[in-house]
Order: sequence, then C-alpha cells, then structure tokens
Amino acid sequence: MEQASSKKLWGGRFSENQNELAAEFNNSLPFDFRLGEMDVRGSIAWAKAIGQAGILTAEEVEDLCAGLEKVGEELSAGSLAFHPGDEDIHTAVERRLGELVGAAAGKLHTGRSRNDQVATDFRLWVLQAVDNVSADLKVVQRALVARAVSDLGLILPGYTHLQRAQPILLSHWWLSHFWPLQRDCQRLAELRQRTAWLPLGSGALAGVPFAVNRSALADSLGFEHPSPNSLDAVSDRDFAAEFLFSAALVGVHLSRLAEMLIIFSTAEFGFIELSDAYSTGSSLMPQKKNPDPLELTRGKAGMLIGLLTGLLATIKSTPSAYDKDLQEDKSPVFQAADNLRLMLPVMAGLLGSLKAKPQGMQAALDPAMLATDLADYLVQRGVPFRQAHHLVGQIVRRSQGLNIPLDRLPLAEYQAISAHFSSDVREVFDFNRAVNRRKEIGGTAEEAVLAQLAEARKLIEV
Amino acid sequence: MEQASSKKLWGGRFSENQNELAAEFNNSLPFDFRLGEMDVRGSIAWAKAIGQAGILTAEEVEDLCAGLEKVGEELSAGSLAFHPGDEDIHTAVERRLGELVGAAAGKLHTGRSRNDQVATDFRLWVLQAVDNVSADLKVVQRALVARAVSDLGLILPGYTHLQRAQPILLSHWWLSHFWPLQRDCQRLAELRQRTAWLPLGSGALAGVPFAVNRSALADSLGFEHPSPNSLDAVSDRDFAAEFLFSAALVGVHLSRLAEMLIIFSTAEFGFIELSDAYSTGSSLMPQKKNPDPLELTRGKAGMLIGLLTGLLATIKSTPSAYDKDLQEDKSPVFQAADNLRLMLPVMAGLLGSLKAKPQGMQAALDPAMLATDLADYLVQRGVPFRQAHHLVGQIVRRSQGLNIPLDRLPLAEYQAISAHFSSDVREVFDFNRAVNRRKEIGGTAEEAVLAQLAEARKLIEV
Amino acid sequence: MEQASSKKLWGGRFSENQNELAAEFNNSLPFDFRLGEMDVRGSIAWAKAIGQAGILTAEEVEDLCAGLEKVGEELSAGSLAFHPGDEDIHTAVERRLGELVGAAAGKLHTGRSRNDQVATDFRLWVLQAVDNVSADLKVVQRALVARAVSDLGLILPGYTHLQRAQPILLSHWWLSHFWPLQRDCQRLAELRQRTAWLPLGSGALAGVPFAVNRSALADSLGFEHPSPNSLDAVSDRDFAAEFLFSAALVGVHLSRLAEMLIIFSTAEFGFIELSDAYSTGSSLMPQKKNPDPLELTRGKAGMLIGLLTGLLATIKSTPSAYDKDLQEDKSPVFQAADNLRLMLPVMAGLLGSLKAKPQGMQAALDPAMLATDLADYLVQRGVPFRQAHHLVGQIVRRSQGLNIPLDRLPLAEYQAISAHFSSDVREVFDFNRAVNRRKEIGGTAEEAVLAQLAEARKLIEV
Amino acid sequence: MEQASSKKLWGGRFSENQNELAAEFNNSLPFDFRLGEMDVRGSIAWAKAIGQAGILTAEEVEDLCAGLEKVGEELSAGSLAFHPGDEDIHTAVERRLGELVGAAAGKLHTGRSRNDQVATDFRLWVLQAVDNVSADLKVVQRALVARAVSDLGLILPGYTHLQRAQPILLSHWWLSHFWPLQRDCQRLAELRQRTAWLPLGSGALAGVPFAVNRSALADSLGFEHPSPNSLDAVSDRDFAAEFLFSAALVGVHLSRLAEMLIIFSTAEFGFIELSDAYSTGSSLMPQKKNPDPLELTRGKAGMLIGLLTGLLATIKSTPSAYDKDLQEDKSPVFQAADNLRLMLPVMAGLLGSLKAKPQGMQAALDPAMLATDLADYLVQRGVPFRQAHHLVGQIVRRSQGLNIPLDRLPLAEYQAISAHFSSDVREVFDFNRAVNRRKEIGGTAEEAVLAQLAEARKLIEV
Repeated sequence: MEQASSKKLWGGRFSENQNELAAEFNNSLPFDFRLGEMDVRGSIAWAKAIGQAGILTAEEVEDLCAGLEKVGEELSAGSLAFHPGDEDIHTAVERRLGELVGAAAGKLHTGRSRNDQVATDFRLWVLQAVDNVSADLKVVQRALVARAVSDLGLILPGYTHLQRAQPILLSHWWLSHFWPLQRDCQRLAELRQRTAWLPLGSGALAGVPFAVNRSALADSLGFEHPSPNSLDAVSDRDFAAEFLFSAALVGVHLSRLAEMLIIFSTAEFGFIELSDAYSTGSSLMPQKKNPDPLELTRGKAGMLIGLLTGLLATIKSTPSAYDKDLQEDKSPVFQAADNLRLMLPVMAGLLGSLKAKPQGMQAALDPAMLATDLADYLVQRGVPFRQAHHLVGQIVRRSQGLNIPLDRLPLAEYQAISAHFSSDVREVFDFNRAVNRRKEIGGTAEEAVLAQLAEARKLIEV
Repeated sequence: MEQASSKKLWGGRFSENQNELAAEFNNSLPFDFRLGEMDVRGSIAWAKAIGQAGILTAEEVEDLCAGLEKVGEELSAGSLAFHPGDEDIHTAVERRLGELVGAAAGKLHTGRSRNDQVATDFRLWVLQAVDNVSADLKVVQRALVARAVSDLGLILPGYTHLQRAQPILLSHWWLSHFWPLQRDCQRLAELRQRTAWLPLGSGALAGVPFAVNRSALADSLGFEHPSPNSLDAVSDRDFAAEFLFSAALVGVHLSRLAEMLIIFSTAEFGFIELSDAYSTGSSLMPQKKNPDPLELTRGKAGMLIGLLTGLLATIKSTPSAYDKDLQEDKSPVFQAADNLRLMLPVMAGLLGSLKAKPQGMQAALDPAMLATDLADYLVQRGVPFRQAHHLVGQIVRRSQGLNIPLDRLPLAEYQAISAHFSSDVREVFDFNRAVNRRKEIGGTAEEAVLAQLAEARKLIEV
Repeated sequence: MEQASSKKLWGGRFSENQNELAAEFNNSLPFDFRLGEMDVRGSIAWAKAIGQAGILTAEEVEDLCAGLEKVGEELSAGSLAFHPGDEDIHTAVERRLGELVGAAAGKLHTGRSRNDQVATDFRLWVLQAVDNVSADLKVVQRALVARAVSDLGLILPGYTHLQRAQPILLSHWWLSHFWPLQRDCQRLAELRQRTAWLPLGSGALAGVPFAVNRSALADSLGFEHPSPNSLDAVSDRDFAAEFLFSAALVGVHLSRLAEMLIIFSTAEFGFIELSDAYSTGSSLMPQKKNPDPLELTRGKAGMLIGLLTGLLATIKSTPSAYDKDLQEDKSPVFQAADNLRLMLPVMAGLLGSLKAKPQGMQAALDPAMLATDLADYLVQRGVPFRQAHHLVGQIVRRSQGLNIPLDRLPLAEYQAISAHFSSDVREVFDFNRAVNRRKEIGGTAEEAVLAQLAEARKLIEV
Repeated sequence: MEQASSKKLWGGRFSENQNELAAEFNNSLPFDFRLGEMDVRGSIAWAKAIGQAGILTAEEVEDLCAGLEKVGEELSAGSLAFHPGDEDIHTAVERRLGELVGAAAGKLHTGRSRNDQVATDFRLWVLQAVDNVSADLKVVQRALVARAVSDLGLILPGYTHLQRAQPILLSHWWLSHFWPLQRDCQRLAELRQRTAWLPLGSGALAGVPFAVNRSALADSLGFEHPSPNSLDAVSDRDFAAEFLFSAALVGVHLSRLAEMLIIFSTAEFGFIELSDAYSTGSSLMPQKKNPDPLELTRGKAGMLIGLLTGLLATIKSTPSAYDKDLQEDKSPVFQAADNLRLMLPVMAGLLGSLKAKPQGMQAALDPAMLATDLADYLVQRGVPFRQAHHLVGQIVRRSQGLNIPLDRLPLAEYQAISAHFSSDVREVFDFNRAVNRRKEIGGTAEEAVLAQLAEARKLIEV
C-alpha cells in the first residue's frame, strides 16, 4: 500500500504514516504559500545553475524553467490547487511541476535542500518587504513635509512632560516626526544589504557538491554575495530579527505621533480635527467622533514589539545548523509587514486630511511659557542663569498667587524680585520673538525651520 | 445621497465617507468573526434582559431570539454572507438580524454599547479556550503518567548542567514534567474565575440607564458576577493577558520537555526513539529522521512569549475607559489558543508512541555518578560531608588520571586517600541501591515514585 | 600547593584554577547576598532536620544553630565581611560558619545541594516580596477609596478614545482603578500558594538519601507542602515568572492610572493639580511643574514587562533539572520588587495629596455628552434605538453646523428631525440626572457608586 | 526657612518640599553617576561654546573649564562626595562646580537644559560602549579563527535538527559562529553613526536662543552632526534601542554557540572538553564538572532580550518631546553593556582553552551520514535526484532492518533496490571525500574553508 509519508519529499526510509495531527502541526503551507513567487524565482535560478554545472541538459533546463513559469502563473492567478500532501510551498511547487513536466521535475532538487531553499525564498520576500516599507515610509514623510509647508506660521505650545514648555512652530513639530522615520529608512537600507547574502548553494548544511557558480547565482537573483559559510547560511535569521526590530521601531515612532495627535484632537486641547474620513463613531453615543486609526496604530505598535520578542526567544534556542523551530520565523515577519502596509498609508492619509485649528493653539499660548525668555532677559543683564532661573521662579509663584498672568503683572512686582527688571521686560512677551530667537541649527525659529525643511525635502526627492 | 458611513452603526453625525484604507484598517471582521457564536449568545441574553426591564415586549423578545438563533445557525453552517459594510462581527450580526426580523432588530442595541458587548463576547470565548486548554493539558498529563507506569524500573542518568549527575528512574523524570502542567491547570482554573465577571450592562463606559438585572444576566450567561465598575468593565483586559501568560508558561514547559526529548533522541544519547508517525525526513538527506514536532513546540514557545509581551505593551498605553488599541487583544489570544490546541495533543501522541531504549540508558550509567553516594559512605563513617566531598573529588581525579572507572579502582587507591574506606566500598556501586536510597517525599526511589504516581493519578481522574 | 578552586565548595576533582574573569562572571554574591537572611533560616531548619535524621548529634545541631544565628546577626548588621573566594551567599555563609563553629560546619551540607538550597532561599524571598507588594497595593487601594469618598458629588466627563463620552462621577473613576489592583492582590495570593512548596530535601536533583522528614521541614519554614518531585523542585522557576507577570500587570495598571492623571493635570484639561511634594521643576524653564513620579511610573511599567520577557526566554532554554542559566532568575525579581516598593507608596502619596479642580471638570461638561440620553428619550417614546441613534446623530451635526450647543438648539430644529421631540426634551440636559440614571450594579449613579464603595471598603479592611 | 526643593536646580516656583519617597523615586544618581565623565566633557564643550557665543567671558570659560576638570578628576578618583540634594549627576556636577569656582558655575547652564544635556551625555556613553563591545567581539572572532586554524583536519558530524546530517570540518563549524559576530560588528558600526548626532544646543525642546555654533560644538565632542530638530533631539532614544537590539542579537549568537558547546561537552557526545579554568563543580556531587560560563551566557541572552523589550515598551508611551519615562533608558543599557563586557571575553577565553576530542568525533561518524552522497552517486548515473533520494531511503531502511551499517551492507542488497549500483559504491563511504566534494564558496571542503578563513582573517586584522 502506498503510504502518506512516502508522498512527502522524504518518505523513503519511513515505515509508518505520519500522524494526522502531527502532519497538520508540521504543515506550513497555510502561511508559506506566500513564498510561492519567490520559490519559483529561486527554482528557475537553481535550474539554470545546475544546468551550467552539468547536472541538467539544456533541454531539461528549458523544460523546467517553462514549467516553473507556468507554476508561477498559476500561483499568481490563484488557480494552483493545493493537495493534502503538500506540506509546504516547496513541496507544492515541485509536485505541480512534476505534473507539468514529468520526470525532469525530479532532478530540480539535486544539490539543493529545503534548508537553503527556504532561506533563499524568505530572504527574497524580506527584500521585497523592505522595499515596500521603505516606500511607504517615504509617503508618510512626504505627508509630514506637506503639513510643515502648509502650516508654516502657526505657533503652538511645545510640551515636555505634557506640560506647556515653550512656544514652537507647528511646522517644527511636524518635522520632529520626520527624522525618526528617516532613521527608519536608513536602518532598512542597511539591513537590506545584510539580507542580500544568498544561502542557495549551501545544501542542507555542508555546501553543494556540484560545480555550481554561487557568485553568478547570487547575481541572477539580485543578491549581493553568496553566503560565506553554509552552516551559518541555513541557520541565520538575523535578517528577520532585524526586519522585526525595524518594524517595531517604525511602530514606536508612529505610536508616539499617534498618541500626541489623539491628545491634540481632544476637545480640551482642540489643536487639530481629524477628517470624518479617518474617524469613526460610536454604536451607542451619537455625538462621538473617535480617532480610531490613531488608536489602532498605537495598539499595533505593541504587537510589533511582541513579534520581535517572540522571534528572538525562538532563535535563541536553535543550536544546530537548521532546527525546525525556525519555521516560526515567517508568521511574525508576515504579520509585521502586513500591518505596516496599512499603518503607514493610513497615517499619511490622515495627516493630509486633518485640519489644524489655529484658534485652539492660540488660546493655549500662556505667557508663563516665556519664563525662560524672562530668565534670558536677566542673563543678558548680567545675572547668572541659575540665579535668573530662581528669580523668575519666584515671579511665576507670585503671578499665580495674585492670579495675574505674567505679562500683566505690574512692573513693581518684577522689580520687587529683581532690580534688573525695567519697563522693556514687556517685550519678552511676544511669542513670535521667542520662537524666532531659537535660530541655530535644529531650532524652532522660522529661519531654522525653513533650512530644516529644505534638508528634509532633499531626502524625500528620490 | 445615502453615505457609506451611515450604513455603519454610527454614521448619523458624519458628513464624509470613511476612507477606504482607513475602513480596511479598522475592519476587525477578518478575525473577530470567530466571536460570532458568542455574540449571538450574548445578544439573546441581552434581548431577554431588556425585555424584563420593560424595553421590549415579550413578542419582540421572542422575535429577536428566534432571529438570533437563526443567525447563529447560519454562522455555524458558514452560510452567513458578510457584507462590505460589516466592519465587525457585531455589525454583521445586527445587520443580518435586521434582514431576518425587520425593525425590531433596531431595538436590540438599547442600553448596550459595542464596548461592553465585545468585552462580553471575548470573555465568553476565553472561558471556552481555558476549558479547552485545560482539557488538553490533562491529555498530556495522562500520557506522562502512562509513560511513568510503563517505564517503571528503567534507570537512566539524571542530569544537571546537562552533565551526568545521579542515577534516577525514568518514571521519575516523566513525572517531573507532570507537575509543571499541573501548576498550569491550577493557574487556568484561577484565571477562569477572574474571567467570569460579566461586563454586559456597563454600556459604553457609564453603566446601563435601564432596569436591567445584571446579576440575573450574569447567571444566564454562565458568569459568576456582574462587573463592579462599568469603566473598569469595558477596559479590563487582564484576563486576556493572564491567558497569554498561562499559555506562555505552558509553552515554556512543553519547550523544556521537547528540548530534552530532542537531546535524548540524538544518536549520541540514544535514550529514546520517536515513532515514525511523529517524525519527518529531509528533502535532501535520505537517512534523516527528525523530531520536527518537538522542535516546532520549542519554537512556538518563543512566539507565545512574544504574544504576551505584545499585549502587555499594548494595554499599558490605553488611558481611557475604552481605547481602540484594545482591538489588538483578540489576534494574540486566538493565535495562542490555536497553537496550544495542536501543541498539546501532538505532544501527548508523541509521548505515547515513542520507544524508550533501555540499552542506551544502561550504557550511560557511569559509576562516577555514584560519587555522592561515595561521599555519603564516608559521612556514615563520621567524616564531615564537606571533607568527604573533597576526598571523593580527589578519588575522581585519581580515577581519571589512571583512566580506571571508579568502581574498578583498586581499594589501595581509595585507602591512600582516606583510611575510612574498606572493602565494603564496592557496595556503593549499585545503581539500584543508589536510586532507592532517595526515598523521602519527592525522591527518585521506586517507593517514593509510586507514591508520587498515586498522587498524580488522583489529579487526572476527573 | 593550595589552589584557588579548592577553596570553593567543589574543588576536589579540579586540577587547574578557575580563570579570574570566569570566576567574576560566575560570582553571584553581588546580588544574591540579599538572600542572606533566607539562607540562614533555611540552614537552621536543615540542621535541625538532619539532626532528627540522625546525621548530627543534638550538640552539633545546637552549635550549628547558634553559629548560624550569629552569621544572621552579622548579615543584618552588615558586619559580615565577604572573601574573594565567596562565589555566592551560600559559600559565604558556610565559610563564615566554619570560622565560628569549626569542623561541625562541614557537616551542614550533608544531603543538601546548592540546587535545593538556593531554590528554597529564593522562594522564601519571593514569599516575603509577595507579602510586601500585597501590603503596598492595599495602601494604594486605600488612597483610591479615600479619594472616592472625599470627591463624592463631583462630575466630570467620562472618556472613551480620549473623547468626551458621557458624564460620570469622579468617585466612580477613582474606583475604576481600585478593581484592577484588587485583581492583582488576588493573583498574588494565588501565586503565593504555588510558591510555598518546599524544594529543600530534593538534593541536587534526585532526592535526599537520609531519613529527613520533609513535611515537618516544610512546616518549620512556613511552606505548605514539600515538593512532590525532586527534579521539578530544583528546576521550577514558575513562581518567579508568576511574580514578574503579576508585577508587570501591577505596572500596567499603575501606568494607565498615571497616564490619565498626567492628561488630567495638563493645563488644557485642568481637572487635577498635583501637590508640589509630588512634582518637580525644570532646570531651564522656571514656570514648569512636572508630574515626574507619574511619568516614571509609566516608564517603569515598560521595564517590568521586559523583566518578565527576559526571564521567560531564559527559563525556556533550560533542559535539564538544574542549569546555571537559572542564576539569572534573581536579578529581575529583585529589580521588580524594588521598583514596586517605590512605585506603590509614591502613587498612594500622590493620590492623597493632589487637588481635584471642580471648575475645570465643570467647564468640560459639554451637552453633547448627553446625546445618548437624548436617544434614550426617543427610545422611551417608541423609536427603535438604532433609529434614535441615527436621528440624534443628525441633531448633533445640525448643532455643530449652526454652532449652537445641543441644549440651546431651538425645539423647532429638534422637531424638524423627529416629531417625537417635545418641550420636555430640555430635561435631558441635566448632568446629574444623566449620571443618576445609571444605577444598576457597576453604574456611575451615586446610589450605585456608594454600593460599590461599600464593597471596596470591605476588601481593604483587613 | 530654606526649602529642600529650592536646593534643586528648579525650586523657585515651588512652595512645598518634595516628598521624601518621591524624591528617592525621582533620584537617578544611583545609576546615572556613571555618566559623570561624559557630563564633565559635555559641560566643558558647552562652556566653550557659550563663551564663543558671548555669554561668558574668556576668563569665566577658563575658570569653568578648570573647575570642571577638577570635578572630573574627583569623579575618576571616586573622591567626589554626593549630597542628599544631588538628584542626578548633572546636579551633582554643577553643585560641586559651584563649590570650586563660585558664582560663575551658575552661568554654565545658560541656554542648556538637562534634556539636551542628558541626551548628550548618554550618547557619549553609548558611543564608548559601542566601541567596547566591538572590540570585545573582535576578541571572540579571533578566538574562533584561532580554533579554526588549530583544528584544521578534524571531521565531525554536522547536525540539523540535532540529528547527524553530513560530515563537516570542525573548522567550518567554528567559522559558522564567526559570521554572526561579524554582522554584529557591522550593525554596531552603523548604529554608531546614528548615535553620533549631537543633541546639545537643543535646549529643553525648542533650540538655543544664543549664537552657539552647533556644528563646531559637535566637532569638539566627536559627534558627526548637530541634530536637525530640537524636539526630536531631546526625545530620540532610538540609539539606545538599537544598542539593546544589537546586544540582544550578540546574546542570541553567543547563546547558540554556548548551547552547542554544552551539548558537545556532554559525556554522550564527548567532542570537546572545557578546561578546568572555565568550569565549575558541584557542592554536592564530587565528580561533576559543569560548563557554567556557557550556561550563564545562554541565560543572560534571555535577559538581554528582556532589556530590549522593556525599553521599547517604555519609549512607545512617550508622547511629548521629553517625558520623564525616558529616565528608564539608562539602566537597561548599562546592564546590557556590563554583561557583554564579561560574556565576550569569557567566551573567548573558554574557546581558547577547550580541548577538541578527535576520538569522540571520529566515533560519531556514522556511514548513514553519507546517504546524500549515495543519492548523488545515483544522480551521477542518471537517476533523477528525487528518485535517488527515495531509493537511498529504502536502502537506509533495509540497513536498519538488517542492523548492518550502510557501508557494510552487501552489494546485492544495494542492487536489489537499484540496478545502478555497482561495486564502486564503496568509494562513497569516505568521510574525507564527502567533505571535500563540497568545495564551492561557503562549503565545508578544506579548500573552501581555507578561502573562508582567509576572508575571516582580513576582517579581524585591524
């Protein structure tokens, strides 16, 4: 009787069928079918490479490539029907190839193992995901730059500890979220290079015993180098961990932006209003308009951290060159990439469609936010900063005690605290002036922000 | 013009359609459809409760319940077709109910919000998952007890630091993996109680404004108590975090067992052999027989840790009573439950079908593992243990230097190191004797193991 | 020549000194010195137990106990000087004991291993930590109850999605943070029971070969049971993971409370003001008053999640009964306990000393928050809720378009949208009435909150 | 009465003392004292920069620098006594500076905030830590290369799934652990660049209002650029997260190496023996020799993952430019750096001092590991690989059934399964030949390993 296991790629030495639940447990097709396109590309390259090494005739290579192209088309079209025996995408592709081209299909796996094959497919997938995420990041960066341009001139409180600190340009704030994403882009570009080392030609663990030109093979698949050590090649999942780390940091950056936008769009702050297109309502409360996409973004950032953690814990426990634990590498990477593919464009759209509310910002500009400038006033009159800080602290306390805003506190009160104050102290209470004093590189002055904007623009003009 | 958003449960106040990507981002139906059965159960209970509160007529209640039963049947049968506007399972159920029973469907949501509704559905789901995991844990525990019974009498090296330490009964080793799972069962039983607090009747956040009897409602849905605070009720996801923590610990326990079985089934150890039914082969290397289910189990334990981490990071950032971040609670819980539902029975099957290899174990019983017993020999002759330990250390060194096993080292060598040795020292070199000396509670002596086994059996006979 | 390693507890068989860096790496004294008191207690109990088993004479037991008491005193007094050779607290205690009582000290370790010893000491420490954290939780719970009592009568907006949702009692909000801590207490009480299983008498892994009465030993040290399996006893660190999980959840609960208090204390919300005693200022900006303790609390919650993650990843990789990886169990537990011992009382003090600002809350009570009550108005006049919700949504939109608050919108506008509205619709716009409508268990009505308060009080009166 | 708070840098506006516990909670000196050297360097650079901006006279600059140098010396010498009011290292340095140089000290903080100051100090610290870890990595890489050189010629089983797979050179295995560390070095070099952006001159959040030349300031402190956005500059902790991620991956790499060395040094494998200098013994079992440093390394890798997780969760929740949560950034980075500083050199020493055991490896070379070569034999005779694999699988099964090793199985048995076998099949059973067939880039053939070794050497010769 023909046995289930012997339909697998590896059944020869087995005398007993695989347990059904164990087979289901082992089956990776429900998620690794997504590697189909990559598996076909890798297999075509391999067919040619072992052809050049003399393992296949030119005709066999041609047949295999034609067959694989066909399998690829069926995969894209969603017309390739999987069989119960297809325990992974590699098996499914090879099985279907056999149906299409016959016996020659049985030669394709010569010198190759699923260990180097899956590592290659997965790297191809991650390379593409890196490109996608990078492109999506640029879209958000462009949205931030567009906001910085269109909101030029608006001043709002800058916060530290979520307390009003000093006045800043809204454009400066938008750009403060541009740079973290720029670092993300850079990190992705760097990990892309480390991902572009080709495992194919490493066999199960020890290398390929045929005269395969691995450098040419790497070239043909768009990799930069062949891997330098076959054992490392089949076990290395650093690139997946790096991708998840980068995804987690992207998530953290979006989460911080989202959180502040949520706060800015409360009735109490009232600095921005989301468009209806990026809001949702309540099933119970008819007046509600909720910033759901921002909250989901914040929530998903937590999940992205978990995906990274999980993979690191998994990789840590894999002692030998290839351990099956590594099958758990794909699900987190797919989840991370899928989530970012929504998080990023949604954020861009939300940014582009929200409305800044100048009146809300204006109303929040409390003269006490100019206390540092008041201290600087004293510094410029020779008072050491530490003492100036302390004197202004007393003025603030006095102003609160009297319940009179700083800018309307009688001069006599100022002078009671320091004789250095004279009537020109009133000039300090000008938010524009305060903003524009900070004009060195990276400062919030319009002059500095325009320079920053120019730099940012260069980075997104690709 | 009728708007897309107004087909949502919440569209009245919105003047603009939801952005398509934002809608996709927001859409939870692709995963929360799994709450369908729970949503129907919760809705039936709610219909009855607001009927008793006088919001619905008896007839309306009857109609709604009949309609909901029908929706439930369609869900089970997989015949309920979802619509593009169904942004979550709650919307889909209410929409379908409307198609079935007409206007009365619009009354079901009176006094209820999706906030208390989803919290209720999700708790119902987790309660069921807890019961499933608990039952599956018992299956593994039974498999361990069965092994302990059938392998009685076999002695193998006990390891610490993966170095041979002292001889133990294989049954004792099997049972050492029983108790961690028993703690898991206990934890699940405890978190079950905390899960069985009913949120329904908390409204969006402030409670229900109608005379709903929440205690009766809790009873009717199998909960133990109504939640004591409506704000807490809609935001509390502790039960989900607890479930994920328990799942992660189950994972860790299975991973540790798996790891040691992997090591025991190496050619080098040769203590066990997995059945073919729980092994897989290699696509390249015809001789390979790999313990894939064990490796997958070890790998999945990492993922389970990550799911917990991710949810904790997400919950941490949710300040108000209900924030949409919480939509990210379901995916990790579903993933954890799904994985455990395979991991546990596969482990049980694998345990039941593996073969212990007595010869391999026997061969590994090195007399040096009796060095502690040798020290005890000296202790019984009045030598303080610390000194005895040191003397035996010297004997071990001598034995290694001469390359003669401890049990064949001439008596003269013993006596050169301590005059307390006499010819009866040979009696120490009996593995059975060594095992059976450790007969206090929890020890490896057969007598103690039988007592342990009796206790274990009591715990699984339910 | 006397060798460094032979000064260790285990040097007999070693022919070469331990490498210095390796010794430093291995040395756990810098942190496990904190187990000193526990090590002494455990050793005294062990001395008595092996005395009863006939290993020691009554006199030896007495000497050892007296010596150990002395060591304990030196440890408390901080006068015990550690030696370079003391690689851990167990070595240090035994070494010092030897100096005090001479040769008898060498008998103490009979039948005991550092594996069961450290597991016992660590459990004793965790039991104490559980009691401390539980007591500290109660202090915060009391502070919340006290606030709920003193702030009775104040109404503020309840938020979901950080948007104003429905009016609630401030006391209800305070109590919403009581219940998560109550769940924490319960979890701690449960894990305490699992911690109180005694490992001592498990030897290195195989049990004790002398007639030690482990049940009596467990009693004498305040444990509930002797561990049922010696292998499990020396490797089980579930209790540490459970403690860290509970600590992480406490952290998450405090973080959520902290976050909302930070938001409530912004100038824009202005609902509370922290006392100066729990605020800090800025080194640059003289006007700043920052809620640092709340931010630190939020930040430390992240760290607590990490401590849990790290330990789980570590435990996962420990295959044999005892692996040295487990030495990494103590640092995270100590860090978690130390941080909670500050986080909890600081939160209690901060809660007790902050000022609620009724005017700020009052100002935020927007009539639109009564939209649900408006829908209920229609429901009570026979309109199905779903339709009522939609109609009120249109009223809200109309009110925004006209820029007239809901409660001042002319009746004609209401009636233009639904003929069910009549002049008594004005009665809906009463925040007290809205609050007090929600009077079922767990609701925000004063009546329900008082009942809740009574229940909460019972739980902290211990 | 002079108040405690007013001794702080920020006390002016406060009317009440800081609560003692809150002050302890807030106090970061117990860990950030380690930034002392960096704080002094940053402060000297700042003094010069504001001198050039005209805020200080040349003389004041000189006095401040001299004073700061002195503070730096006291810090190195450990002679700087901290005061109860020193809430962080910045306060302590400024306070001490005041004692040394008088009033001028009060001018140092002009235009600077602790927000940009601590970010600068911390980056300086991380830059140094990156250099240290990189250097330590090179030490381990050199140890691996040295082993690869000295162990040339030794063949051992290569494993996948911890099952014997194919023969490999031990040198190839050593080098498989070289490349992950090389990737770590590369990552560290990359993150170093992102760390070298200078925050100083960003003030609290809005930039510096004086004519400070930030590019020159960056240069003077060894940074590559001034930060482009002041808000981002004070809140960005990406560099810390990146450092922790890199540390976690280093940990994972060392853990995998450690795990396999632990397995190789079991009695059952017997492939290597650790030197006594890197082993420890047991307090109970005199014969034990345990690979503690390897187990600790494995355990610490878990902790490193946790440190990363914790910081990510913390950063995620920091909405405004600077939130105090960020104070929790230093402890994990310090812990990670401290642990790596021991883990790496200990691993190097352990590698250098262990003994390879050729006999153990030899004994494990099972002819079944040549099954792939047997399949290749058929391939070279025209059998498609997939069929060849299946045929060899049957031979393996036959060999096991007859209990005759593959290389001694009668030719007739071979021929019964495939007519392609002839007597030259015996030539397959040569482990050297099998190893040396895999000679393409990255393969295990001696020729390929020598090329790999040459490449590795180039990378460590710096």
